[in-house]
Amino acid sequence: MYNSKVKALLVMAIMATTTILKAEENGLNLMPQPAEISVGQGRLAIDGTFRVALAGYQEPRLQDAATRLIERLSRQTGIPLSDQVETDPAKATLVIQCDHAGEIIQSINEDESYSLEVTPQQARLAAPTPVGALRGIETFLQLVHVDSQGFAAPTVRINDRPRFAWRGLMIDACRHWMPMDVIKRNLDGMAAVKLNVFHWHLSENQGFRVESKVFPKLQEMGSDGHYYTQRQVKEIIAYARDRGIRVIPEFDMPGHSTAWFVGYPELASAPGPYTIERHWGVFDPAMDPTNEKVYTFLDKLIGEMAALFPDEYFHIGGDEVNGKQWNSNPSIQAYMREHGMKSNDDLQTYFSTRVQALVKKHGKKTIGWDEVLHPGVPKDIVVQSWRGQESLAVAARQGYMGILSNGYYIDLMHPASQHYVVDPLEGATAGLTAEEKARILGGEATMWSEYVTPENVDSRIWPRTAAIAERFWSPESVKDVDSMYRRLAVESRRLEWLGLTHRSYYPMMLERLAGEQSAQNLKFLADIVEPVKGYARGRARDYTSLTAYNRLVDAARPESDAARTFASLVDDWANNKTQIKRQLTAWRDNNADLVPLMQPNALLQEDVPLAQDVSALATTGLEALDYLESGKPAPQAWVAEQSALLDRAAQPRAELLIMIVTPIRKLVEMAAQGKP
Amino acid sequence: MYNSKVKALLVMAIMATTTILKAEENGLNLMPQPAEISVGQGRLAIDGTFRVALAGYQEPRLQDAATRLIERLSRQTGIPLSDQVETDPAKATLVIQCDHAGEIIQSINEDESYSLEVTPQQARLAAPTPVGALRGIETFLQLVHVDSQGFAAPTVRINDRPRFAWRGLMIDACRHWMPMDVIKRNLDGMAAVKLNVFHWHLSENQGFRVESKVFPKLQEMGSDGHYYTQRQVKEIIAYARDRGIRVIPEFDMPGHSTAWFVGYPELASAPGPYTIERHWGVFDPAMDPTNEKVYTFLDKLIGEMAALFPDEYFHIGGDEVNGKQWNSNPSIQAYMREHGMKSNDDLQTYFSTRVQALVKKHGKKTIGWDEVLHPGVPKDIVVQSWRGQESLAVAARQGYMGILSNGYYIDLMHPASQHYVVDPLEGATAGLTAEEKARILGGEATMWSEYVTPENVDSRIWPRTAAIAERFWSPESVKDVDSMYRRLAVESRRLEWLGLTHRSYYPMMLERLAGEQSAQNLKFLADIVEPVKGYARGRARDYTSLTAYNRLVDAARPESDAARTFASLVDDWANNKTQIKRQLTAWRDNNADLVPLMQPNALLQEDVPLAQDVSALATTGLEALDYLESGKPAPQAWVAEQSALLDRAAQPRAELLIMIVTPIRKLVEMAAQGKP
Repeated sequence: MYNSKVKALLVMAIMATTTILKAEENGLNLMPQPAEISVGQGRLAIDGTFRVALAGYQEPRLQDAATRLIERLSRQTGIPLSDQVETDPAKATLVIQCDHAGEIIQSINEDESYSLEVTPQQARLAAPTPVGALRGIETFLQLVHVDSQGFAAPTVRINDRPRFAWRGLMIDACRHWMPMDVIKRNLDGMAAVKLNVFHWHLSENQGFRVESKVFPKLQEMGSDGHYYTQRQVKEIIAYARDRGIRVIPEFDMPGHSTAWFVGYPELASAPGPYTIERHWGVFDPAMDPTNEKVYTFLDKLIGEMAALFPDEYFHIGGDEVNGKQWNSNPSIQAYMREHGMKSNDDLQTYFSTRVQALVKKHGKKTIGWDEVLHPGVPKDIVVQSWRGQESLAVAARQGYMGILSNGYYIDLMHPASQHYVVDPLEGATAGLTAEEKARILGGEATMWSEYVTPENVDSRIWPRTAAIAERFWSPESVKDVDSMYRRLAVESRRLEWLGLTHRSYYPMMLERLAGEQSAQNLKFLADIVEPVKGYARGRARDYTSLTAYNRLVDAARPESDAARTFASLVDDWANNKTQIKRQLTAWRDNNADLVPLMQPNALLQEDVPLAQDVSALATTGLEALDYLESGKPAPQAWVAEQSALLDRAAQPRAELLIMIVTPIRKLVEMAAQGKP
Repeated sequence: MYNSKVKALLVMAIMATTTILKAEENGLNLMPQPAEISVGQGRLAIDGTFRVALAGYQEPRLQDAATRLIERLSRQTGIPLSDQVETDPAKATLVIQCDHAGEIIQSINEDESYSLEVTPQQARLAAPTPVGALRGIETFLQLVHVDSQGFAAPTVRINDRPRFAWRGLMIDACRHWMPMDVIKRNLDGMAAVKLNVFHWHLSENQGFRVESKVFPKLQEMGSDGHYYTQRQVKEIIAYARDRGIRVIPEFDMPGHSTAWFVGYPELASAPGPYTIERHWGVFDPAMDPTNEKVYTFLDKLIGEMAALFPDEYFHIGGDEVNGKQWNSNPSIQAYMREHGMKSNDDLQTYFSTRVQALVKKHGKKTIGWDEVLHPGVPKDIVVQSWRGQESLAVAARQGYMGILSNGYYIDLMHPASQHYVVDPLEGATAGLTAEEKARILGGEATMWSEYVTPENVDSRIWPRTAAIAERFWSPESVKDVDSMYRRLAVESRRLEWLGLTHRSYYPMMLERLAGEQSAQNLKFLADIVEPVKGYARGRARDYTSLTAYNRLVDAARPESDAARTFASLVDDWANNKTQIKRQLTAWRDNNADLVPLMQPNALLQEDVPLAQDVSALATTGLEALDYLESGKPAPQAWVAEQSALLDRAAQPRAELLIMIVTPIRKLVEMAAQGKP
């Protein structure tokens, strides 16, 4: 057993040299920031003698976690390490002490807290449950870095626990099929930033993605052969549980369900036949709420899926029914009149109530999008809000639990900073009573997959989701955007060691675009463009599931670090003249080699105007600098000319935005005034 | 059936617009170059309608190959493709016509030839055997590129066959353990460049890497748990066969065998106990050739392994016995005197003869390093020469077959150009008769693994091995080094789509080195350094299998493209002034951000002198340019000063070489003369 006297001495030793810091000022690159941390002066060396020991409560999940920790540490440092877990805690570099078993089925009540003490002699992680230990292991790995003596973890004392109990990521595996390895590596990423709910969007107009043994035509006719077998589902659930992550399946009803009708047209509100939807959008097909056979079917299917997925919650979707099939079906209309339903909302409420009863019958609680909330719904449901805090506040006052997704739609290509400042407990929810606030369980980032493929999906999830994960885990006071970006850059690199491809996809896609040429000049352009935001991309072309997503807009990252860095240089213009000039010159001159590469290339031709505008903007920037240095205001004619260029360059082309327009405009404005 | 009249018309249509070109001048980026090629004017579009059909002889290997082709084409282009093989050749974009089954156990006699015709309407690949079809598929994939209309294959007519029957890559899985995925992805790479022998180095002082059921202590005590199970061996053999690659196991005897003796010390020539060797080099332990029990043991083991590996050849190693254990064992000395053996060579010959008889008994032919050749050896052995063409010529004159490895030691970090110009039929072998020349079967690149780990091993194999593969496959006349480098750059990018990590490892290792900072400045330095050459690294430190191979020398690529490109700019100095200056300025200024990053970093401190010298060299280069532009010779004092710098900078530091020393020296020499 670990000697508690030694422990007490070590703790005192730390405290003697420790300064208590606010989480956001600790100087370490932790993400999410822990609830409480004190940083000391010493270091615990990490070298080839590194050993892990387990103490206290034991289970296979902890053994596996220890082995994974060793493998990851070896990979991150490049140091060969023995993969044997040490049996004697006194000989271990890291002791993981777990108190007792966690929940058999992890729920919102699972204790995820842990404490971590690092002294120059040893690191000690203590947690009530294995899930808490998993969270602490991630923190420990984030502490390891290289210093002047080698790899080390700093002397530190951490007490940590999550702010919200529900910290999720939704992946839409329907619009684009996401193979097993995509799901697994993203579960690794989730665990690394302490997310704990994987919401698996499994049915859509474009595909029914899970094997049903009861209704096999669902996957056989509704998936193009791309579905998870029940064995694979179990594999993912076990993989997630090993990482302290719950898995919640979503079967979206009564809309978003065309793929169901390919095999079972009798469920729909209009006669078939149906084919798998290839386009994106909201479509007419919807289940017929007035058909008893629909409920018989759903009873069996929900029963089968409720047995397959152990989580206490079952997601029934419920969003975006346009009602057209209902409106044009006379028998549905007659039914509505007979039963006093005045609107399609009433009809959907009826459907939703029936389905929720089935979910309950099979031992589960319901989660659904905003639409599932209506008078009389049982209090144990969870509302997932795509609408916003106002919806959640209304629900919480009525006694309903909710999670926020509005503000966390990562498919919309907004910057991390935009998601980061969204808080489940702000705006309409900020005024709730403490009791009502407790009903706001957390939030979920949503990765809708119209415009992503397995090749680039990681880049749309990471690293931005790490910033959202910090919002869900860390104290409310952790909200410094600069600190977030500094730590996000480090975390992004760390996530690649897990096998995520959000960085490695980029040179590959750029090289494909560059054809048989070097992609170096293209990268220079790609680094400062971003895909159009929000729903603009869907309006640009008639995209389908058969489209090749291999253009620059698909390669470009959602957020340009290069442009953000440049903007911050411009903000402190006077101190960064040389760097700004060097950068602008490089952008100006990049075209000479780039445009000849792009013109004969079918994939890149559309991007030539962007390349030309970047060059022109760089020239403008250089001229602005000259005026600024001259101390005299730039001539009005010049300013007018540049404004026209800036306005043009601010327009999306090829569904891309040039992200240096704003800082260049700032330079022009300063030049126009003749002073910064 | 495919309409042969249509075919004839198409062929005529091609010929009408075709220019027959020498392979090396075809303008396409094929590697290896095919034996004969004519290029036309048209293009075959590759889009979402792409389909493959199989015609003629069919087997599962062809079906799998067709499916893999579709997957790879989809990945390379980013275009979603149906993974169904088309049944109607008339509807296919590519028809693969195979004539008959190949050998059940692929041998040096397998027919690997194929022909490939691409017209604007269809591509048609014809091959006598499935292995020929596999070779043609790789050529087809290399033809696909992006042009102004989209992806396409050019109109082309190819007749192709290998120059040498034995085109191998050896991977040492002993000194550093190489997991299954390393082997598989390298088999993919081998197939892509038409290599056909995977030589698997499976036993060494540092590890016995394959499961023996007869003598389980071999792997249980001699491998640290890192060995291939027999099931895994079969998996690799099947994987290789699917790609037209033979698998030849090597069990190195009587030296290089410490790991055997950990479990079976009675085989050795000195009493044990033995432990797994951790250092690199040639060590004393060797089997006892005078002990009958050794042959009883080897009879059973060779029997077991001969049944496991289907190839007709079995590699018994035989290299580098230092003889110390034999010299100091009185009973061995007595035996030698008794049997009239005058030297250790005689003793090894005796051992070798006995082992070859066992190999033959179990139905196999022997392959071994030079040392296995001695008077009286049966004519069906193959000599693998680490010594050179002279060895092979001697052997061939005596009627022995041979393959060349001298010149293809890719672990020694020499440039592709150096390996590329080595020909199995040059020097001593050039003077052989045609009949003797036919005994030179080909060659093998050898990846010894002292200084590589699974993390960087691909970068030591690829892309340089593609150049060696071209030497083995293409006509002797294909030897233009510039053309090779141009095509190698393209092939290197293509190889990454197969899952090889020879490019993606690089940013990862640099980012580890840079710690929590950006690796951008470090990359700039890393791009122009190379690891020391030959056996210099082994002399620099006391390396072991427990060393962390995570330094800049481990990240740096064997060959610096940036330095080679810069050297070619300097060769045409007058036309590249701007580019040279820009490059030199960037190198000069890189230190400002780089050195502060390196100094407090234990992994990078040793590289500070390199960074400083690069900056100084760049300054020298800029000054030289100024002198050159002035038209007057540089002062003698300046020249002397620069020479001192150049001499210092040419010395290895941290086991690295700065590769821009030579072109900078050239600039200085030109400046000294006052003219280029």
